[in-house]
Amino acid sequence: MDTNIANTPAPPYYAVIFTSLKSDAIEGYEEMAARMEALAKQQPGYLGMESARNDVGITVSYWSSLEAIEAWRTHAAHVTAQQRGKEAWYEYYSVRVCKVERAYSFRTGMRHGDF
Amino acid sequence: MDTNIANTPAPPYYAVIFTSLKSDAIEGYEEMAARMEALAKQQPGYLGMESARNDVGITVSYWSSLEAIEAWRTHAAHVTAQQRGKEAWYEYYSVRVCKVERAYSFRTGMRHGDF
Repeated sequence: MDTNIANTPAPPYYAVIFTSLKSDAIEGYEEMAARMEALAKQQPGYLGMESARNDVGITVSYWSSLEAIEAWRTHAAHVTAQQRGKEAWYEYYSVRVCKVERAYSFRTGMRHGDF
Repeated sequence: MDTNIANTPAPPYYAVIFTSLKSDAIEGYEEMAARMEALAKQQPGYLGMESARNDVGITVSYWSSLEAIEAWRTHAAHVTAQQRGKEAWYEYYSVRVCKVERAYSFRTGMRHGDF
């Protein structure tokens, strides 16, 4: 599977949709984003992550349960990063916690059914 | 509210996370994407859309109900676009239908609570 595409299990599982607009002051942002991505991958219940940015940045992370999401939200290093994000990097962000109820995928030359 | 940020109501509502990798052949893609975005906005139950692309493209659209999502999925012009997407534009895509259970946002200088 491609490194930038999350290979998630069959639903149900959970998704956190993080949408953001960055401010002009982004010193230290890339390092922190890379560190948080690496740290997220080590958390219990982490299933995958997908990310893209133009004007708007969208990061979707996938988790096995609401408890796993809550544990990551309150992880000490992540709390510090969130605080720094609010103080310095983000003009705006939204967080949406979702239950993935249905999923399907397509790949050239093959059609995956519901998974 | 910013044009690229969806101004959604209080949960619950629904999100469709569309993640894709494009093939090299993308003739006609931009026109079709713009047409589908304009058409989606006219559909009953449409609440907003957010989109970004680097290697991976992520488009999240928001809807009031599963019925609204199903109506858009089976809309004739959209079915045609999906078929063309599979034949010509996408190397890979996934569609995840989600229920947004909780949401909050932050804007510089103000903190929005749960909405």
